[in-house]
Amino acid sequence: MAEKSIADELADKHKSISIAEFFEKNRHLLGFDSKIKAMLTCVKEAVDNSLDACEEYATELRKKKKDFELPDILVRIDQESEEVYKIIVEDNGPGIIPKIIPQVFAKLLYGSKFHRLKQGRGQQGIGISASILYGQLTTGKAARIISKVDGKPAHIVELMIDIKKNDASITRDEEYAKFSREHGTRVEIILEGTYRASGDKSIYEYLLRTSIVNPHAKIVFIDPKGERITFKRAVESLPQATKEIKPHPWGLELGVLIRMLKETKKNTVLSFLTDEFSKMGATTAKSILDNSKVNHKRKPDSVTVEESTDILKHMQKADLQRPPTDCLSPVGRGAIEKSLRTEYNPEFIAATTRPPNVYRGYPFQVEAALAYGGNIPETSAKIMRIANKVPLLYESGACAITIGVNETDWKRYGVPKASGTTTPQAPMIILVHICSVWVPFTSESKAAIANYPVIIKEIKLALQECARQLKVFLHKKMKAKREAQRVSTFVKYGTVMAKALSDLTSKDKKEIEDLINTVIEKKFSVNVDEQKKEIEKREKQLEEEEEKETKTILKEAEGEEK
Amino acid sequence: MAEKSIADELADKHKSISIAEFFEKNRHLLGFDSKIKAMLTCVKEAVDNSLDACEEYATELRKKKKDFELPDILVRIDQESEEVYKIIVEDNGPGIIPKIIPQVFAKLLYGSKFHRLKQGRGQQGIGISASILYGQLTTGKAARIISKVDGKPAHIVELMIDIKKNDASITRDEEYAKFSREHGTRVEIILEGTYRASGDKSIYEYLLRTSIVNPHAKIVFIDPKGERITFKRAVESLPQATKEIKPHPWGLELGVLIRMLKETKKNTVLSFLTDEFSKMGATTAKSILDNSKVNHKRKPDSVTVEESTDILKHMQKADLQRPPTDCLSPVGRGAIEKSLRTEYNPEFIAATTRPPNVYRGYPFQVEAALAYGGNIPETSAKIMRIANKVPLLYESGACAITIGVNETDWKRYGVPKASGTTTPQAPMIILVHICSVWVPFTSESKAAIANYPVIIKEIKLALQECARQLKVFLHKKMKAKREAQRVSTFVKYGTVMAKALSDLTSKDKKEIEDLINTVIEKKFSVNVDEQKKEIEKREKQLEEEEEKETKTILKEAEGEEK
Repeated sequence: MAEKSIADELADKHKSISIAEFFEKNRHLLGFDSKIKAMLTCVKEAVDNSLDACEEYATELRKKKKDFELPDILVRIDQESEEVYKIIVEDNGPGIIPKIIPQVFAKLLYGSKFHRLKQGRGQQGIGISASILYGQLTTGKAARIISKVDGKPAHIVELMIDIKKNDASITRDEEYAKFSREHGTRVEIILEGTYRASGDKSIYEYLLRTSIVNPHAKIVFIDPKGERITFKRAVESLPQATKEIKPHPWGLELGVLIRMLKETKKNTVLSFLTDEFSKMGATTAKSILDNSKVNHKRKPDSVTVEESTDILKHMQKADLQRPPTDCLSPVGRGAIEKSLRTEYNPEFIAATTRPPNVYRGYPFQVEAALAYGGNIPETSAKIMRIANKVPLLYESGACAITIGVNETDWKRYGVPKASGTTTPQAPMIILVHICSVWVPFTSESKAAIANYPVIIKEIKLALQECARQLKVFLHKKMKAKREAQRVSTFVKYGTVMAKALSDLTSKDKKEIEDLINTVIEKKFSVNVDEQKKEIEKREKQLEEEEEKETKTILKEAEGEEK
Repeated sequence: MAEKSIADELADKHKSISIAEFFEKNRHLLGFDSKIKAMLTCVKEAVDNSLDACEEYATELRKKKKDFELPDILVRIDQESEEVYKIIVEDNGPGIIPKIIPQVFAKLLYGSKFHRLKQGRGQQGIGISASILYGQLTTGKAARIISKVDGKPAHIVELMIDIKKNDASITRDEEYAKFSREHGTRVEIILEGTYRASGDKSIYEYLLRTSIVNPHAKIVFIDPKGERITFKRAVESLPQATKEIKPHPWGLELGVLIRMLKETKKNTVLSFLTDEFSKMGATTAKSILDNSKVNHKRKPDSVTVEESTDILKHMQKADLQRPPTDCLSPVGRGAIEKSLRTEYNPEFIAATTRPPNVYRGYPFQVEAALAYGGNIPETSAKIMRIANKVPLLYESGACAITIGVNETDWKRYGVPKASGTTTPQAPMIILVHICSVWVPFTSESKAAIANYPVIIKEIKLALQECARQLKVFLHKKMKAKREAQRVSTFVKYGTVMAKALSDLTSKDKKEIEDLINTVIEKKFSVNVDEQKKEIEKREKQLEEEEEKETKTILKEAEGEEK
């Protein structure tokens, strides 16, 4: 029958999609939707990995009471042809053993950070492979990785990604004598891109902000012109190490609990509860099981879905401590202020670090800073969004930080907003840093933070703390401004009314006007004639703008016909 | 050596992440970040699939000159317990043959729409499996699928997703006698959720908007209270069928070309070029190869990367026609107006369908409509974002449509904006529909459209076409308003000035004030006393608001100490 064959025809069209194929077609999900953004994303992914590697290495060495180095990172961009660039990022991290280089760089969804609960820059095992994927997609060129483990020979690997298999196809793999560092990794990716030397979304701006929130890192940037910019260290100490934590019952999901019960190596459900969750003592665990009528000695994998549901309910009702926060590493109020002062020398600065909070069982912490005046440009406020010490430059519209900023009633704190915009108009920098063991990004490009209400609340509270201090500072400026406005209204009105009155009375217009002006000059101690010139100037401007707009509208109308 | 062991320790921590595991942890990427949104997303994914299936089925039958039915969809939501709901979506589509049900519903990245270039609602092969994943994650319950192919017995399948394997684990699979339809599919998912009966992000609103842009579909909605709402058909005809197209050389990427060359079954690079791309004639193909110095008879898989780069360059320089647009199916200006009229009976309505355009080689088309007044509430404008006939309710901030709306200078068209917001303040509906063979969404949740400049440009042009018509309509209203404002200024300062003048002159205050009022009443023909009452009322309100805000600030300050 025809119907039958239709259902079968449709069935035949179904097939699996490889994750690499999926992201190749959806590369904008990974931050590769424009040539400018693609270059930034590639640098960002490489630098994130380098900083993570350097910090982990230094921390391990410190634990072992050995000498360690602070992060020392080189970013170099060579122009190969008109729109083709080679991006080179090199670090003094531990290096990567040759065996795993292919997966680390040429397999999407492969990494060391996904399954652990610990603050880090990378977390998905996608970024660097995605950058290599984009490089080969746009230039057909293989990526090159050179890596050296201390005391071992360096290795060079050249590879591409086999899209259908989501795995490496290796074109070169051998020892390499010319690597200059004792240990570390160098990545070279050739890609199609557009380079911007400056601007809010430039690589320079990204590295600048990175150094602001990573004052312990030295970053050297060599741009396509060969110019060398060094972002020096502001502090000489390694940030406090972050500890990995176990999942906390708050926000634990039933499906996850069920899977943990199946996968655990513990013999009893009691030891499972006490050993595999944070802040879960034996007494609490026992009462949870008793309330759920589950025997303490039950084998975890024998627990039914209904019993798991009960256990979860009581786990979440149980009166537990918040998750530990030694898994978090904020930049710190002092360090942020120091960085911003050195960079912008503002008239006013206020910073704050909120106490940690929890979303879906994940600890997180918000820091904010407001800097006003000084070298900060007179345009609308510059918002610096930071997540786990990584600056976010794109997709601000979707970001919890932007929402937090926009939902803050800046007018109330004396900061004006240009009509038609939601960001404050002032020579101001608004810096918000959120750190967490698991930052919920709105997409794999990790450009914006998902809008969890508790996160937005923390952001707003942090901003309000700073804004209240700013309000005091701005109070005077505002008062003066209001006064000026009142004057101009009177001046303006005075003329009109003088005319009206002289029309009605026999009195001479000039006389009345002088009278009025005396009132005003007495009241506000200003010179009326100057005021009038001012006002005329302003009104002339408005008229001109009006005209210009009408012209633009007409132009558009024509434009469309084309 | 310690260093060595550190690099090895770090290496040992690396492992693969299953795509199901990835999305379980990143469920917000799929639209499951809140309980309200999760329910909507689940309904949306199921309804999208149903509409696609019904339309494909009807189109195939029509091709075969057989009777066909228009989409007839049932959406039912049962409340199982306080925050647990069962979502049921049933259609009169072709049904799914039992063999592929497990992958279709329990394997992420599996589907029929990813590899084709044709306008459709689904495109990723993620949505429905993700909904089932969320259901089991929050309730531990299996999903149920009942499907019947015409002339065959119905089948019932109950399954869950094996997270590590990203594949189905089936708990029930047998014939099923009780399915009421001749053909179609029924999906039942039990999940944790929060139900909202109304509001911009409610399931009701989603179904309403769906019916507005799918006037050929009948949708019956049975809500948790058992209330039955029917969205009737506005038209009785099937939309024009969309054709699948081949990739167009514009926006073709080198990596894709290289892969196509490796995978093609064609024997010569010439036949490859002519047969596997749209709008590519033999003459053009030949000149492209000649310009790239590649022999027409070369085996496609023998072409080198450098040669491919050349070929691509010349393909994109070649003077080709735009991609065919019979792959697109806009709603149509008439149909949109009709739907909006029936729903809101507005004072004014304007709609437009732009000519198709192209981004990254994908054809797309923008439609827009403005409806003003009537039953549209007096709040800020309601923006209806639609992609391939699917309403988008979330992540508006990140969406190209929102940007297009915000970048439109509404003031210029006589529509005011509330200060501090970018959306126009008016009893207005702004509907924008973008259809494409591949809609670039900002995340897998398909809630927002990526910000490709050419797409934003088309959106703005469409809105401007409608806005210019609106401007004319609004002109009168605005004029009246401005007049009123001028009056109040005069009235307000009349009193102040009268006092000032009487202080300086011997004249009696009352006398002067009357004089002034006469001026005003003559000039504007209004009653000054009424005007004054008006003004006092407004100013009182402002004062009260001031006070309230100060209180709120203080409260906040306390709130933080807690």
